[in-house]
Amino acid sequence: MRIVAVDPFYLRMPEITSAADGTQDTLLVRIRTDAGIDGWGECDASPLVSIAVYCCPMSHGNIINIRTSLIGETVDGPDDVLRLSEKVLRNGLDIQQIQHAYSGAEIALWDIIGKKLQKPIYSLLAEMSATPSTPHPKLPYASVLFGDTPEDTYHIAVALREQGYHAAKFGWGPMGKFGEENDIALVRAAREGMGSDTQIMIDAGVVWGTDYETAYKRAEAFAEFSPTWLEEPLAPDAIDAYSSLTAKNPRVPIAAGEGSNTYRMAEDLITHGGVQFVQIDTGRIGGIMPSFQVRRLAEQHGVQYVNHTFKSHLSLAAALHVFATNPDFDLLEYPAAGSELSQRIVKNPFPVDPDGMVCVNDLPGLGVQVDIDAICPYLVPVNIHVGTETVFQNTFL
Amino acid sequence: MRIVAVDPFYLRMPEITSAADGTQDTLLVRIRTDAGIDGWGECDASPLVSIAVYCCPMSHGNIINIRTSLIGETVDGPDDVLRLSEKVLRNGLDIQQIQHAYSGAEIALWDIIGKKLQKPIYSLLAEMSATPSTPHPKLPYASVLFGDTPEDTYHIAVALREQGYHAAKFGWGPMGKFGEENDIALVRAAREGMGSDTQIMIDAGVVWGTDYETAYKRAEAFAEFSPTWLEEPLAPDAIDAYSSLTAKNPRVPIAAGEGSNTYRMAEDLITHGGVQFVQIDTGRIGGIMPSFQVRRLAEQHGVQYVNHTFKSHLSLAAALHVFATNPDFDLLEYPAAGSELSQRIVKNPFPVDPDGMVCVNDLPGLGVQVDIDAICPYLVPVNIHVGTETVFQNTFL
Repeated sequence: MRIVAVDPFYLRMPEITSAADGTQDTLLVRIRTDAGIDGWGECDASPLVSIAVYCCPMSHGNIINIRTSLIGETVDGPDDVLRLSEKVLRNGLDIQQIQHAYSGAEIALWDIIGKKLQKPIYSLLAEMSATPSTPHPKLPYASVLFGDTPEDTYHIAVALREQGYHAAKFGWGPMGKFGEENDIALVRAAREGMGSDTQIMIDAGVVWGTDYETAYKRAEAFAEFSPTWLEEPLAPDAIDAYSSLTAKNPRVPIAAGEGSNTYRMAEDLITHGGVQFVQIDTGRIGGIMPSFQVRRLAEQHGVQYVNHTFKSHLSLAAALHVFATNPDFDLLEYPAAGSELSQRIVKNPFPVDPDGMVCVNDLPGLGVQVDIDAICPYLVPVNIHVGTETVFQNTFL
Repeated sequence: MRIVAVDPFYLRMPEITSAADGTQDTLLVRIRTDAGIDGWGECDASPLVSIAVYCCPMSHGNIINIRTSLIGETVDGPDDVLRLSEKVLRNGLDIQQIQHAYSGAEIALWDIIGKKLQKPIYSLLAEMSATPSTPHPKLPYASVLFGDTPEDTYHIAVALREQGYHAAKFGWGPMGKFGEENDIALVRAAREGMGSDTQIMIDAGVVWGTDYETAYKRAEAFAEFSPTWLEEPLAPDAIDAYSSLTAKNPRVPIAAGEGSNTYRMAEDLITHGGVQFVQIDTGRIGGIMPSFQVRRLAEQHGVQYVNHTFKSHLSLAAALHVFATNPDFDLLEYPAAGSELSQRIVKNPFPVDPDGMVCVNDLPGLGVQVDIDAICPYLVPVNIHVGTETVFQNTFL
């Protein structure tokens, strides 16, 4: 099969706020082949900046856009995905945004190969790596923002519990901004609202920067509410600070990794940062294969791999295939409060089973189908003119 | 002073080829204040992708563009630059391209502060860090591409020698692509053309990826021609491979670092990669302050800091201020074969003195003046429309 089109689509809600809600807009990528098989992927990244990576004029041999690298190439099996990824990343060596932008296309290529070979992606990955090929159900944790107050947070937690969630992560918002007492009250409210027989996770949203002493103090203070982890207490790049924090062995385990824009950043966090949970966004790190490589590294280091997913079930599918076959990696970030847009992107989302678990399905490729009619109203027209040339305009969905 | 405008300008030559020549296009950034003081900076990055970072619509609180973060802010002294950099990077936390794009603006802010306080930037840095404040001359090395053949390379080297260069770096092109014999012949030609009383450097242009065994073999084979270093034999992210290579103590020292998009990448290369020269591009890593922080780290680790500069003398000025005051860091990458565009950007380039050295000047700010009349013919009109909004169109120069 030959690649005949590589099209990014910018979708967004009518209003965008500065809340830490990643589902307000998104960038989908569709790749078409001459055999009539299409693949889809989703990026967790600035849509406009990433679109520019698909169409930017060449600057020299290290700044060549993704469309130029992919269109006309053949793609018939997993090896082609690896070969094309190498080409795209080599041609984009001096484009910093290359991984964020390429993630959607890489996922779409796996979707195409899975559909062609009639196999789910987790099964292709298992074959390539000679690892177990049986998928295992995951415990989904609802991923929500803290309420503005402890009381609001309590009500959010109660509602999640009533929806049947046995685990929930609370993050961002007021955490870290109004002093220790308020931070503790927020965590207490989350625990009380969810109940003592659930898992809660706390996401500090990089609020303490490089201040690992405060991060340690909070981890210790939160311990009485038994959160599964304290996530991103520090800036993504602050590896030395993570190292100092984890060396103090706080009673609450430390999680991080969503800021990993490259495999190396995740590797750095695992081998030098000392985190106990590594959270990878398949839509940022360059797609499924670099995520799978982090999963393998986590297995070697006794670190738990978890997905970071704050987009639609298209992203959730890509994320889940990466670690579906490892039963020890049993937690799944499951967006529970996403925008109307993010809930409409796929026709067949991954449901929470009656027993409270989520399992990857056995359909070919990603196993989810993009609902084109549903997303059309959210499509944002983008036109980019450089010199006398139109380097980008929307393709029809 | 208040910031009233932040304008990126995309400049390019009429024809762009895939050669590894970074001077074929560029992105300048001009910041204007209400006090009538303007500052300029240059990015070494995809112009279009970086422009998108100046104007992309907000996605949420971690994807806010650079213009939004800067316009209306006050800027009166070095502390304001640090404060604004923190704001820009925090608002752009989930924009991978943020450092590449922001570099030009950060440099422009330093230029403004220097002009306001009537001090060169190296002097402002010395005051902030309580380090020596006397600038020292550097030995410029011409930075050129290998010829297509050893013979072509020889002629290039002879010409550089005749121009008065006592040092020259040869890179990219055929290196690593046609086997060991050709690689050695290229280095021999560079040495013979330059003569035995000069310094030559070899830039392998990431050609061996993660294959540190081949990189080691080449370093050993090149040793008889006494190059000062072997540069970027491996991919920028291949820290483990760099570590394996440097652990074998090749007779030619290893240099790398131009691919450092963040301070952490440079730190990782120094502390884990074991390189002996770290080469930082002020126009990629986020500007002058993160470069200066790498310089300080290099001082602590006994590693030699060198600039990476393959743009105009606007970039060269920014690069030079960072390490002008350390006499041990005595080499300066000096673009010798840049495009007509890159040679016209500033009115007062840094000349090579009669004694063959280059020294920073004592003018306020960067100490170079952008030649607006000269660059106008190279300006590329860019228009970006998102939805019903024009998010970017060129400002008049």
